[in-house]
Amino acid sequence: MINHLPVYLVALSALVCWTPVIGSGHYEPNWDSLDKRPIPAWYDEAKFGIFIHWGVYSVPAFGSEWFWNKWEQKLKPYVNFMKRNYPPGFTYADFAPHFTAEFYDPDHWVDIFENSGAKYVVLTSKHHEGFTNWPSNVSFNWNSMDVGPKRDLVGELAVAIRKKKDLHFGLYHSLFEWFNPLFLKDKANHFQTRYFPVEKSIPELYELVTTYKPDVVWSDGAHTNWTYWKSPEFLAWLYNDSPVKDTVVTNDRWGDVMCKHGDFWTCHDRYNPGHLLPHKWENCMPIDTGSWGFRRNTDLSSYLTIEEIITILVETISCGGNLLMNVGPTHDGRIIPIFEERLWQVGRWLKVNGEAIYGTKPWTHQNDTLTKQLWYTSKKNSAGSVDVYAITLAWPNKGLLRLGAATATAQTQVTLLGYPEPVNYKQESSGLLIYAPLIPTSVMPCQWGWTFKLTNLKQKYPYQQFDF
Amino acid sequence: MINHLPVYLVALSALVCWTPVIGSGHYEPNWDSLDKRPIPAWYDEAKFGIFIHWGVYSVPAFGSEWFWNKWEQKLKPYVNFMKRNYPPGFTYADFAPHFTAEFYDPDHWVDIFENSGAKYVVLTSKHHEGFTNWPSNVSFNWNSMDVGPKRDLVGELAVAIRKKKDLHFGLYHSLFEWFNPLFLKDKANHFQTRYFPVEKSIPELYELVTTYKPDVVWSDGAHTNWTYWKSPEFLAWLYNDSPVKDTVVTNDRWGDVMCKHGDFWTCHDRYNPGHLLPHKWENCMPIDTGSWGFRRNTDLSSYLTIEEIITILVETISCGGNLLMNVGPTHDGRIIPIFEERLWQVGRWLKVNGEAIYGTKPWTHQNDTLTKQLWYTSKKNSAGSVDVYAITLAWPNKGLLRLGAATATAQTQVTLLGYPEPVNYKQESSGLLIYAPLIPTSVMPCQWGWTFKLTNLKQKYPYQQFDF
Amino acid sequence: MINHLPVYLVALSALVCWTPVIGSGHYEPNWDSLDKRPIPAWYDEAKFGIFIHWGVYSVPAFGSEWFWNKWEQKLKPYVNFMKRNYPPGFTYADFAPHFTAEFYDPDHWVDIFENSGAKYVVLTSKHHEGFTNWPSNVSFNWNSMDVGPKRDLVGELAVAIRKKKDLHFGLYHSLFEWFNPLFLKDKANHFQTRYFPVEKSIPELYELVTTYKPDVVWSDGAHTNWTYWKSPEFLAWLYNDSPVKDTVVTNDRWGDVMCKHGDFWTCHDRYNPGHLLPHKWENCMPIDTGSWGFRRNTDLSSYLTIEEIITILVETISCGGNLLMNVGPTHDGRIIPIFEERLWQVGRWLKVNGEAIYGTKPWTHQNDTLTKQLWYTSKKNSAGSVDVYAITLAWPNKGLLRLGAATATAQTQVTLLGYPEPVNYKQESSGLLIYAPLIPTSVMPCQWGWTFKLTNLKQKYPYQQFDF
Amino acid sequence: MINHLPVYLVALSALVCWTPVIGSGHYEPNWDSLDKRPIPAWYDEAKFGIFIHWGVYSVPAFGSEWFWNKWEQKLKPYVNFMKRNYPPGFTYADFAPHFTAEFYDPDHWVDIFENSGAKYVVLTSKHHEGFTNWPSNVSFNWNSMDVGPKRDLVGELAVAIRKKKDLHFGLYHSLFEWFNPLFLKDKANHFQTRYFPVEKSIPELYELVTTYKPDVVWSDGAHTNWTYWKSPEFLAWLYNDSPVKDTVVTNDRWGDVMCKHGDFWTCHDRYNPGHLLPHKWENCMPIDTGSWGFRRNTDLSSYLTIEEIITILVETISCGGNLLMNVGPTHDGRIIPIFEERLWQVGRWLKVNGEAIYGTKPWTHQNDTLTKQLWYTSKKNSAGSVDVYAITLAWPNKGLLRLGAATATAQTQVTLLGYPEPVNYKQESSGLLIYAPLIPTSVMPCQWGWTFKLTNLKQKYPYQQFDF
Repeated sequence: MINHLPVYLVALSALVCWTPVIGSGHYEPNWDSLDKRPIPAWYDEAKFGIFIHWGVYSVPAFGSEWFWNKWEQKLKPYVNFMKRNYPPGFTYADFAPHFTAEFYDPDHWVDIFENSGAKYVVLTSKHHEGFTNWPSNVSFNWNSMDVGPKRDLVGELAVAIRKKKDLHFGLYHSLFEWFNPLFLKDKANHFQTRYFPVEKSIPELYELVTTYKPDVVWSDGAHTNWTYWKSPEFLAWLYNDSPVKDTVVTNDRWGDVMCKHGDFWTCHDRYNPGHLLPHKWENCMPIDTGSWGFRRNTDLSSYLTIEEIITILVETISCGGNLLMNVGPTHDGRIIPIFEERLWQVGRWLKVNGEAIYGTKPWTHQNDTLTKQLWYTSKKNSAGSVDVYAITLAWPNKGLLRLGAATATAQTQVTLLGYPEPVNYKQESSGLLIYAPLIPTSVMPCQWGWTFKLTNLKQKYPYQQFDF
Repeated sequence: MINHLPVYLVALSALVCWTPVIGSGHYEPNWDSLDKRPIPAWYDEAKFGIFIHWGVYSVPAFGSEWFWNKWEQKLKPYVNFMKRNYPPGFTYADFAPHFTAEFYDPDHWVDIFENSGAKYVVLTSKHHEGFTNWPSNVSFNWNSMDVGPKRDLVGELAVAIRKKKDLHFGLYHSLFEWFNPLFLKDKANHFQTRYFPVEKSIPELYELVTTYKPDVVWSDGAHTNWTYWKSPEFLAWLYNDSPVKDTVVTNDRWGDVMCKHGDFWTCHDRYNPGHLLPHKWENCMPIDTGSWGFRRNTDLSSYLTIEEIITILVETISCGGNLLMNVGPTHDGRIIPIFEERLWQVGRWLKVNGEAIYGTKPWTHQNDTLTKQLWYTSKKNSAGSVDVYAITLAWPNKGLLRLGAATATAQTQVTLLGYPEPVNYKQESSGLLIYAPLIPTSVMPCQWGWTFKLTNLKQKYPYQQFDF
Repeated sequence: MINHLPVYLVALSALVCWTPVIGSGHYEPNWDSLDKRPIPAWYDEAKFGIFIHWGVYSVPAFGSEWFWNKWEQKLKPYVNFMKRNYPPGFTYADFAPHFTAEFYDPDHWVDIFENSGAKYVVLTSKHHEGFTNWPSNVSFNWNSMDVGPKRDLVGELAVAIRKKKDLHFGLYHSLFEWFNPLFLKDKANHFQTRYFPVEKSIPELYELVTTYKPDVVWSDGAHTNWTYWKSPEFLAWLYNDSPVKDTVVTNDRWGDVMCKHGDFWTCHDRYNPGHLLPHKWENCMPIDTGSWGFRRNTDLSSYLTIEEIITILVETISCGGNLLMNVGPTHDGRIIPIFEERLWQVGRWLKVNGEAIYGTKPWTHQNDTLTKQLWYTSKKNSAGSVDVYAITLAWPNKGLLRLGAATATAQTQVTLLGYPEPVNYKQESSGLLIYAPLIPTSVMPCQWGWTFKLTNLKQKYPYQQFDF
Repeated sequence: MINHLPVYLVALSALVCWTPVIGSGHYEPNWDSLDKRPIPAWYDEAKFGIFIHWGVYSVPAFGSEWFWNKWEQKLKPYVNFMKRNYPPGFTYADFAPHFTAEFYDPDHWVDIFENSGAKYVVLTSKHHEGFTNWPSNVSFNWNSMDVGPKRDLVGELAVAIRKKKDLHFGLYHSLFEWFNPLFLKDKANHFQTRYFPVEKSIPELYELVTTYKPDVVWSDGAHTNWTYWKSPEFLAWLYNDSPVKDTVVTNDRWGDVMCKHGDFWTCHDRYNPGHLLPHKWENCMPIDTGSWGFRRNTDLSSYLTIEEIITILVETISCGGNLLMNVGPTHDGRIIPIFEERLWQVGRWLKVNGEAIYGTKPWTHQNDTLTKQLWYTSKKNSAGSVDVYAITLAWPNKGLLRLGAATATAQTQVTLLGYPEPVNYKQESSGLLIYAPLIPTSVMPCQWGWTFKLTNLKQKYPYQQFDF
């Protein structure tokens, strides 16, 4: 009986729904039908992507990418910033010509992303400000070709990313716009009129997909009822007829359906539930903890340390999520060195520990029952059995790690990823005891987050019933 | 039989069609019905209006208000101007934040206009560039409230004009926009789609009329078939249901109907046919002969002299037209002194000669048959007879003016407007001979254009059949 | 005895001192010696020059060329102008990059000046703000080559003016600078130190004279004791050894010597004493009555009318002065049309009446004793007798002009300049009665200021004793 | 005989000359006399300072702080950068208004510097561009109060630094200026004239010292003969009469005397000789290896890693130098996070290893004779004997360090700074063998550069003869 199964098994059963199946059907524009679509395999295997927030807000680069909104709300720091640095009457639109992007070198960006170990990149094509980073037909003189960069920021990045065989290209798009008069008009009409989606947002989505063929359509800003946006109609087209119908994945922000519908769920920003979810999900999270867009009014203390990033990455992957880690380029098109340093550090870590991340599935346990800060992933190996990866975020001061969730068999071997020697262990009744080797600091495989690979553990449940 | 009537009588009969009739009907959205509407009386009586071209083009203030278009066409002077003065990649939209209007004082403008003797003022609410001089709902971040002036230029002028009882407020509006992608899309579709009028131009017109209640809707930029614009539908609403249905006048630029349909005809810019037309018309004409918008790359030689302006004014009124004389304010909101000087000079002239202009009707002759540069207007006086005004643009060197078109009666009196003494004349067989008085220069009533008022001339045809 | 001579004769005797003598001596650096220098002949003959105020103040173009000073004094309109239009902390120096001069075409300027009838042009090389309109060695990064125009404004105008044989080139230079710290330091030291003249102003003067060879050195801003500036030393060099020693003229603003020393006296701005002076003088006067530099915050009412200008010109020349009439170009290098119109109007007047202006000397009377607004000039004709020019600013309404100062002889002829017919007159005991001809307006020689030329008048005093 | 003494002893004898002596004398303006001055003690004890390059070059932030010079030299990347991003005619001075410094928070800067472990801070008061970061009397409109920041950048930092008891304030000052016309004039005169030093550089130095009382005067840009600058006269005043005569230290860039005269020698940028010098010296070195001023056109690869920085720091201190490590703030006043990260990392290292750096003297050996990348410092302890610090930049993979330069005695103790347990060692004939403890990575005291403290080593030479 189902209610006798442990919790994790229930969750695992649910995982089936985001496993690719052979052949894609025809989808109807309703959630029931759309929810039946299997998520393309590349996405779950990729695990780690880069999010990029870039727009007119990168010019004031103050507060956050919500600059315009907070200024309009008359929040003190924003009002004062404007009063101190700009002439009276300066508007948000006046910032646009200063969005110059003269140092924007998409190939260099992509090199940085590739070196981070990321497998996909999601760029904001348009944020809530309404400025389109491509020459949209429906954003006359409020797009990156007419004002500011005078370049197709989206298109140039697409080209650069497609030169790399291991990177997928995705696009963020905000359905709503804070201050678009058409949206405000619909709002004043209690969303009984649909001027805004019909004349602005929906045409943009079709433009984006047909022109740039993104593998991720990352929707946002849809706080109203989905019927206002008629998102299912767009998604049905996207899944049935669009040029990316076989590869595209979408998130869950298509109206009031967050954490309910969509290829992967994002639920809320920085979503990191700490346990397995019955649906593929993604943790989107900025390195600058206070802002997604680049901001100047901060210092080192607000940037995540590499230790914090590795922690978040490991927790997320272990619980079945993908990590979409955000950087905010400057108004002139640079990814500042501290972002590059963090990405390079993640990349260095993934070179050693990527085996425990890419292409893995959640294990029967996510974090260990005895040792804190120790998380599991798993992967079927070529021999058909399952390798389990126990990633400890804290190296044991005393040299001993006791795993409560794992049980060794006679065939079990333990290794430390990046270290050539086998690792000793002992199966005790209270758990599997690993003797962490005493390695001189100069030959440690990495500095933060260490992976012990465990083979041939005792299977507690028949794995073959799950398709991973 | 009608074909025995002289030409001018045919023309005069036609004048009936633009004479107001009692009661306005309900108009259908087709030209036949719309053409039946009598033109509101104020417009023909006003005779003289001020046209204002003000927009983003006032920032480069180079070449003309067609700056953007000519630059895109890669005309040398425009390309060079940009190359020499702006960074590479500077776009037209980048000019908008410099449209500052800090010296824009609508009350001061209106004083200048009032002193010129004008009776109506027509402001460009939007030119072909698409920038709206009011906070339009359908021109997000490309309007005067979001960028540049941060003011409702249209609204502020409307308020200022309405403080003057003798001034009517009008709005110019360009139906098409050179570079709006929606328009270009419709064009690419051979105007079989109508995205642009539906989403942009038509909503703008409704916004303008309901918000600012203009007495003139001066349409422009409609070179395509009127069916694309569905102008008759807008006009039917304007005439039947709009808040200005009883006072508004419109021109003839509503699609390919120029010189065919509309309250008054403009035919083409600077239209000045030199003869009577069978329909009310308007001569729109800029003081800077080379540009409607303010431009910097010119000098005094391109501004009309006051002598030239009086000539054009007199010719236009004599032939049944109105004169809409244009000034181009600067990007910072000033009407430069040379414009003010010309307007002041016209005003000074009208103070003396306005009787021969305002409220007049064309006479049986427009210009004299013997004396060149002499034009007629006429007006029914309180006694019920018709006063005729013979306006000579050249003072007679020898002191004699011989009129071929006028025949004196025993009751005829001749006066010079602005001069207290009666003027001697003699009716000869070859014409009416006026003895222009020898007046010391210090007491001449005006310096350019002198009006001889002739009363009780011999009626060649029964005037009562014409309603003027 | 001298005290029996009428006042005007005393004045006339004094005129000798500014009459050129043959051969120039060697001048000592003291006022006694310098005052002995005869003024080069060209200057008195020229009569009419153009003054140009152009500098960084042309960028705000608000208030006047004293913008910086008044702003620092915290005068309300200036403080508000800055507060409303610029970000906090914007400084005067921040205006300099916007002094762009892109439309500066010195040849076109010179055409305008030449057409005005002017015979010399004086440009501000540096005003009290300290910004040099040439690449000075002692104004690093605060000159027109390093910032703003990136051109040698002085040098380019010099070249253009020298293409015209009838125009002399002159330079205005402000000795002091409001806010130069070296000047303020000297001031704090009660001018007992001389850092500023030694390191800044005096080197500038030498640079200007040796580089641009001006025929006028128009000094200004010297309100302190002349010993601080050691002006006599510079002037001795200028008169003895400089490349312009034979042609240069200077004014009287070289310290506290205004109206006391110098080639010509300016006394104060807009100096127009209304009577003959015992020394050559100059009336410097701006067309915009409220500002020397171009300003935007004004309108037509502050510009002198042509009638007012002709009045000032005639009064000035009649009393022995020169008129230096000022225009203020815009920051982008244009002379706006209203200035051009006034200059063109003066030129048109001088084409007719120049004979009564250029090369004339004051007559025994300046204005008439009976008729107001009537001023005299005089000139020895080729036959050796003196022609007298009676310039009336008001055409007689009744056709009669009665001159109290002139007495006809039998040989006397009266003509109206620009009119072919002789003019009737009658010598009566109460004065010379001129019958102003009744001329149709269309053939009047000019519209404002008419010159009656009187030959062979009765000589009241032996003219030969005066050298003019 | 002296030639039997080993090299290091000769060097050590020389060290006496930079040891403070009691009482300061009166110095003559010649190098012999000036060289006799003992260097104030604080400087040698401080060891580590922060250099700040901040100026108008921080606005283009391209290439390096030599931007102006290289652009004038027409180097391709600079010319292209300007051509692509600025209008024609844009000058270097045009950058100044954009030097906004709105985020400049000197207290926050000082917190960052203090946390880095630095003991002094040297700010560029003026670089070769001539722009003064304080309101100088001799740099009118080319200083940070008149243009750009509108703040006294120097003065504000001085105040902030003086709030910290452990930080000394210093000022960099460039004697020459690339493009100052007075300097170019002197140069054209083969430096036989001295307009520039007399009117500009020397007055600046007096202003700086009397106003801001810096403890370091870091001169630069003096490539010409020192007689041109008359530096000894300034230095004599500085040492005898200035407000900082007892605390100030100066470098050696006062004309062609580099590596010859001055309190400490800098010889050339990034000077790091790798052996002991017979004079106090300083290694000035930028974290961004390609530029001292902030530049945008680079990426992470040009920033020194923390491992490289620790290496340079250790080498420098070991050889008797001070390290002056440079950061380049942005035009808006920020120290970007990568700089803050490096400074924070150095600070973290110094918290553990500062004992081996601050207040130390070079030892008899600088680097070890057997083990590479191992450097020594030494310090007299409270017991009167000398502690020796052996700093290894590479942790021994095999756990063994063999020191050739050190010989243990029976009293010798070995410890690892930051680690509580004693360290085992064994004196062998071939050297002192240290058994590096096997410490779990989680409890290692630091990640780069480890200090073994060695007490009571065998004295090879009588230390008491050297005064340290």
